[in-house]
Amino acid sequence: MAKDEKMDKGITVKKGDDLSEWYTQVVQKAELADYGPVQGTIAYRPTAYAIWEHIQEIFNGMMRSTGHRNVYFPMFIPENLLTKEKEHIEGFAPEVFWVTHSGDNKLAERLAVRPTSETIIYTFYSKWVRSWRDLPLLLNQWCNIARAEIKSTKPFIRGSEFLWQEGHTVHATKEEADEEVMRMLNFYKELVEEYLAIPVIMGKKSEREKFAGALYSATFEPMMPDGKALQGGTSHNLGQNFSKPFDIKFLDKDNTSKYAWTTSWGISTRLIGATIMVHGDDKGLVLPPKIAPVQVVIVPIFKTGEDAAVLKKADEIRKALASHGILVLLDASEGKTPGWKFSEHEMKGVPVRIEIGPKDIASKSVVAVRRDTGEKKGIPEREVGASVMALLAAIQSNLLAKARDALQKQITETDDYAKLKSTIETKGGFVVSSWCGADACELRVKEETGATIRAIPFEEPKKLGNCLICGKRAKHKAYFARAY
Amino acid sequence: MAKDEKMDKGITVKKGDDLSEWYTQVVQKAELADYGPVQGTIAYRPTAYAIWEHIQEIFNGMMRSTGHRNVYFPMFIPENLLTKEKEHIEGFAPEVFWVTHSGDNKLAERLAVRPTSETIIYTFYSKWVRSWRDLPLLLNQWCNIARAEIKSTKPFIRGSEFLWQEGHTVHATKEEADEEVMRMLNFYKELVEEYLAIPVIMGKKSEREKFAGALYSATFEPMMPDGKALQGGTSHNLGQNFSKPFDIKFLDKDNTSKYAWTTSWGISTRLIGATIMVHGDDKGLVLPPKIAPVQVVIVPIFKTGEDAAVLKKADEIRKALASHGILVLLDASEGKTPGWKFSEHEMKGVPVRIEIGPKDIASKSVVAVRRDTGEKKGIPEREVGASVMALLAAIQSNLLAKARDALQKQITETDDYAKLKSTIETKGGFVVSSWCGADACELRVKEETGATIRAIPFEEPKKLGNCLICGKRAKHKAYFARAY
Repeated sequence: MAKDEKMDKGITVKKGDDLSEWYTQVVQKAELADYGPVQGTIAYRPTAYAIWEHIQEIFNGMMRSTGHRNVYFPMFIPENLLTKEKEHIEGFAPEVFWVTHSGDNKLAERLAVRPTSETIIYTFYSKWVRSWRDLPLLLNQWCNIARAEIKSTKPFIRGSEFLWQEGHTVHATKEEADEEVMRMLNFYKELVEEYLAIPVIMGKKSEREKFAGALYSATFEPMMPDGKALQGGTSHNLGQNFSKPFDIKFLDKDNTSKYAWTTSWGISTRLIGATIMVHGDDKGLVLPPKIAPVQVVIVPIFKTGEDAAVLKKADEIRKALASHGILVLLDASEGKTPGWKFSEHEMKGVPVRIEIGPKDIASKSVVAVRRDTGEKKGIPEREVGASVMALLAAIQSNLLAKARDALQKQITETDDYAKLKSTIETKGGFVVSSWCGADACELRVKEETGATIRAIPFEEPKKLGNCLICGKRAKHKAYFARAY
Repeated sequence: MAKDEKMDKGITVKKGDDLSEWYTQVVQKAELADYGPVQGTIAYRPTAYAIWEHIQEIFNGMMRSTGHRNVYFPMFIPENLLTKEKEHIEGFAPEVFWVTHSGDNKLAERLAVRPTSETIIYTFYSKWVRSWRDLPLLLNQWCNIARAEIKSTKPFIRGSEFLWQEGHTVHATKEEADEEVMRMLNFYKELVEEYLAIPVIMGKKSEREKFAGALYSATFEPMMPDGKALQGGTSHNLGQNFSKPFDIKFLDKDNTSKYAWTTSWGISTRLIGATIMVHGDDKGLVLPPKIAPVQVVIVPIFKTGEDAAVLKKADEIRKALASHGILVLLDASEGKTPGWKFSEHEMKGVPVRIEIGPKDIASKSVVAVRRDTGEKKGIPEREVGASVMALLAAIQSNLLAKARDALQKQITETDDYAKLKSTIETKGGFVVSSWCGADACELRVKEETGATIRAIPFEEPKKLGNCLICGKRAKHKAYFARAY
C-alpha cells in the first residue's frame, strides 16, 4: 500500500472550497452510492442502505406508538386516476414516467409509475371508508418513487428514483387532520434532530410552494453548509381536495354522509444526503453514532511475532463492546497497514476507532480516537464498554451542537430587501424577513435572487415589520433561502 | 349486529369444495388484500404486510449471520442491458412493462421496469469486482417487481406487481457458488417450515423449468390443498452465463484474470398466499403464531353493571401477556357482541382467543380458545403468561404436523404412466416417478397431463426404475405435479 495509492483514495478537494465536488467524491469513495445507467438513478450501497434501515426502524417505532400501520399499494397508476385532481396532475405531469407497453402489447391506457401515491391510495380508501368507525385510518408505506428529473441530479438529494415513506391518513374533521399533520412533523423533527443530529427550521409552505393539491403544506428544512436549504420532508393537510374527486365519504355519528379530510406526509433517502453534507469533513463521511451501521472499528496494530496476542486481545475488546449493544467491527484484514485502515474507516465515517497494539496490552489499556474531533485518549481495558458508550453519546451531542451553531450563523434577520439580496448572493443561508403574504412579492424575490420561501414559522412573530418588497404591513416572518 | 349480517361477513363456501373461491373470500374478508385498478395488482393491507415484515425480519437475521448485506438497485433497466443475456431476455420478454415516455418526452431508449434485477445489478458488479479480495460479494435487496401477467392472476400467488427479496452474489469458483445456492435454499426451508409451518419438497429444476439464463436452479415447493404445487422460492447458480456478457472479472491470487461465478435467489409475497391456503379453514384464516401480527386477542364479556371490573381485569391480563413478549390485542370496541368479535378474530386467524367475564373473575381464571382446533380450556389467572406461551408453541407444532401429514398423503410413488395420469387427474399432489432425463419425456407428461417436473431431489434415490415414458433406464426420481 504505497502512500500514493492512499492519496488516490482520499478526497481531493476541501469541503469548504467546493461542496458539490466534495460531496460527489464522498458518496463514491465512502461507497455510499454508485451511478446507474439511467440519468438520476443510483445503487444504494450497504452503508447507505443500512442508514436507511435505521431510519425505518426509528420511524416505525414512532408510528407504532400512535397506531399507524404499514401497508403496500400498487406502483402503477392508470392515467385517468392520476389526472382526477387538477392541481395535482399539473404539478406532477412533467416528471411522470409512463408505461405504454407490456411485452409487445400496447396498453389500452397508459400507466404512471407512481410519482407519489395519493391518487392510487384514495381509490382504495373510497372503498374502505364507510362509517365514522373506520376513522381515523392511519396507513403508511415504504416504497420507491419515480420522478423524471430534468434539473441536475445528485445522489440521495435529487434523483429520478428514490426511496421514501408516505403516510396517508383519513379523518372525520379538519381539526383532526391538522393535529395529524403536526404530530408527524414533530416526529420528523425528533428523528432528524435526535438521531441524524441535524437541527431544522419548521413551518408552513407558502401557497406557491405547497404540495400540488394540498390545502396547506408543513415542512422541515435543514440548512446545508453551502448556504442552500434542503427540504427534508413535508406533511400536508389535503383538506377535502382529494376526498371529493375520489369520493371518500363516511356516515358520521349524526347519521349524515360527509366528505373526509385527508393528510399525507413523507421523508425520503434525501435525509442520507443531508447527513453526509452537514457532518462530513475533509477526510470524508462523519456519521452520528445513533445511525452509524458501524459505531466502533477496532484496528489491531501488529508487530512481528505478537500478532496472535494482539488479535486475541482485540477480539476480547470486540466482545466486550458488543455486549453493550455497540455495533463494532474488528478489522483484522491482511495486507493493509494500520494507517491505511485508519484512513479507510475515517472515510467511511465510523464514529470511534480503537487501536490495540503490544504496548496497549502491556498497559492494559486501548487507544480510542474520535472521528468528529480527532481527539485520542487512552482507556483502561476494564472500563472499555462504559467509556466507549460515553464517547458515542458525546460525539452524538457534539455533532448536534456544532450543527446548531452552524445553523445559527446561517440565519440573517432583515426587512431590508437589499440586504436580503446581498446575503443570499454572498453567504446564503436563511434570511428571515417580514412578508405581506402576496404572491407577487414572493415571486419577485424568487426571480431576482433565486431564493424561495422555505418556511413560515408556526409561532406568531413577536414583532412584524413591513413587507420587504411592497412595504405594506406584513403578515408573516418568512424564511427565505436558495434551496436544493 | 343481527345474525344475518354476521353470516354476510363469513365465508360462503367450504375450503374443501372450492379452494379458489374460498381463497378469494378469505383474502378479502380477512382484509389481507384488495384489488387494484390495474389487472394483477393489489393493495397489501396491514395484516398481510405485517406478515411480510415478519418474514423480512427473520430472513434478515439469517442473512446477517452469513455476512450478507442489504442494498437497493435502480428499478429501471435500459433495454440494451436487459437483452444482453439471450436466454434471459427470451424468458422475460413477454412480461416486461416498458416505460417509453417521461412527461411529454419520448425516451431515447425504452426502460424496462425490473422483472428481476440480474442485468442491472451486474452492470454495477462489473465495476465493483476487481480482485479476489472483493469476493465473495454477498448482497440482497427487498423490492417490488413488475411482470405483466397474462395467465389468471390471484392475490399474492400470481400478480403483475409483487414484493420479494433477491440476493445476488459473486464468487471466485463454481464450488463456492454451489455452496451459496444450497445455503440460501436451506435458509428458505428453515424459514418456511419453522415459521410458516409449511413443509416443502426441495430439489433441482429440470433444464426445461430452470430460470432463464441459469446454469441450474434449485427450488422448494410446498403442496396446496387442491393438489397443485406452488413454487415457493428458487436459488440459482448462474454459472458464468452473466459474468461473461456483463464482464465481471477478478484478478485471482495466481495473478490471472478470471470470470466470476454468480448466484441469485429469491422468495416473494407468494409465501403469504401459501400460508393462507395451507392453514386456513372454513372459518377463515389460521395464522401460525410465529408470524401472526396478533397472537392473542382478549375479548371481554360484559354483563350489565360489571363492565368496569371486567375491563380492568382484561387489561391486567393484556399486560401480563405483553410482558412475556406476546403480541396481544384487547378488543374492547363497543357496539359489537362477543360472538361477533369471536367470528371476526377467527376470520383474521388470530391463534388464541381469551374470554374474560364476571364468572371468570370470580374463579380467578380465564377461558382460552385455540384457533386451530377450537379447543377451549380454563387457565388460572396466575399462570396465564406461561400457559399461553405453551399454547402458542403447541399451535405452531400442530399446524406443521398437520401440514406434514397432508403433504405425505399428497405424494404418490409410481413408475406407471397410466397411474401418474389418473393420479394427477383425480387427487393431484406430487407423483414421484423415475425419469430418464430426456426433455421429450418430460414434455410429453406436461402436454398430456399438465404436470411439470417441480423438483428433482438432491439425494440419489435408493432404487431407480425405468423412465415412466420411454422405459429406458432412468437417471432421476422426479416430483411431477400441476402447479400454480
